[in-house]
Amino acid sequence: MSRTERVWTAALVVIGDEILSGRTQDRNIAQVARWLQVQGIRLSEVRVVSDDMGAIGDAVNALRVAHDYLFTTGGIGPTHDDITVDAVAAALGVEVVVHPEARAMLADYYANKPGGLTEARLRMARVPEGAGLIPNRMSGAPGIHHGNIFLMAGVPHITAQMLDGLTGTLEGGAPLISETVGCWTAESEVADILREVEAAHEDCQIGSYPFFREGRIGANFVIRSTSAEVLQRAVDTLCEALGEEGHDFTPGGI
Amino acid sequence: MSRTERVWTAALVVIGDEILSGRTQDRNIAQVARWLQVQGIRLSEVRVVSDDMGAIGDAVNALRVAHDYLFTTGGIGPTHDDITVDAVAAALGVEVVVHPEARAMLADYYANKPGGLTEARLRMARVPEGAGLIPNRMSGAPGIHHGNIFLMAGVPHITAQMLDGLTGTLEGGAPLISETVGCWTAESEVADILREVEAAHEDCQIGSYPFFREGRIGANFVIRSTSAEVLQRAVDTLCEALGEEGHDFTPGGI
Repeated sequence: MSRTERVWTAALVVIGDEILSGRTQDRNIAQVARWLQVQGIRLSEVRVVSDDMGAIGDAVNALRVAHDYLFTTGGIGPTHDDITVDAVAAALGVEVVVHPEARAMLADYYANKPGGLTEARLRMARVPEGAGLIPNRMSGAPGIHHGNIFLMAGVPHITAQMLDGLTGTLEGGAPLISETVGCWTAESEVADILREVEAAHEDCQIGSYPFFREGRIGANFVIRSTSAEVLQRAVDTLCEALGEEGHDFTPGGI
Repeated sequence: MSRTERVWTAALVVIGDEILSGRTQDRNIAQVARWLQVQGIRLSEVRVVSDDMGAIGDAVNALRVAHDYLFTTGGIGPTHDDITVDAVAAALGVEVVVHPEARAMLADYYANKPGGLTEARLRMARVPEGAGLIPNRMSGAPGIHHGNIFLMAGVPHITAQMLDGLTGTLEGGAPLISETVGCWTAESEVADILREVEAAHEDCQIGSYPFFREGRIGANFVIRSTSAEVLQRAVDTLCEALGEEGHDFTPGGI
């Protein structure tokens, strides 16, 4: 690809006191990041904010103009602490309305369940005015999109359903591809090699991720590029340089 | 405690392309969050940014003035992609200098290791001018503190060592305490109860976290307060209300 090709970027706002209290281990950052890679969109920034109208609104307004796409996870359920729709509507300066199609989906889903479509459940049909829906086969309650903003559930396997529903629908650029080279060497011993290989290849970044495993020190070097050709050249150069210095390395990673 | 007592807040900047690419599952948000709770400090916001001078600097400058404490994880190792020290120094408008004590620690640590104290390893003694060190018994390379900013390693078990070194050294307020009540009921069926119990108790928040387990739907309700007395009253009220409606609930959580 040409180096001047457009890069598509996204930001993610993870909403929820349960993440900020450490009670729940977030899984959505990695999940959304991997999904975006496949769409050719780069996740550039993530913010984790509390269940607070102002905090959500500030993050949404800062990020929706700075990126091609903005995703949120969390806070679209039926309980009083689910305020994402209200916060995003306030940030956009639009009303909250009941989406007729979402209402129909929920009525259908809860038709044969105890309690039926209660007031609380009907909260999940509320959207910022002008919004469309993201299908969710799992629980009846859809995700929401409004312009370049995508509001998704916080429960990871429901988030996954919504990402699945969006697959292939967003315009993106060339995905960033990567190769890993593992090495049973302290990263500090090969820091010069890494820097030189990265500098010698345009459109290439190398990350170094040390580990301690089986009582030994090592590191995985992840080489990333949007070009398969550049990537291969950089990997070859790196392996050659590691081999010349006698390091114990493994293409594909350790 | 009095409701006007000072609340201490912190922000966390997670630095690293490996998190934003989805290659690495972050563990530091939850780890730092739980540690802060014990110190009586509330984690209010997290940003995940790429290995980019501008992105790191912008996040650091936005958050260090908005919170009592700012923590960072990642990017303080020996390789070319470790630029946190440079980015923070630039954000603060100070020089990067070699800290004599850090240099001595590294010289000692690498004295009997192959290669000794190389140029790359010496990078880990670089600090923003005016900084102090955070001890790290694990790998010789210390963390760094500068004013209200704490720069820590990205590898979770090294981060843990640095947090351990900081335990009890930071001023905090009354820690937020919590109790959990689990319930084999769809959260949408008890949304009214949750909202009413929260509204009836000042200095109390209730979060609702649904799950699907053993083929059944349920939710854990986490009640948080800085007052043990308020917390107990809210838990009692919630259990009473759930019991009255015949829900199958479990104090302590499911």
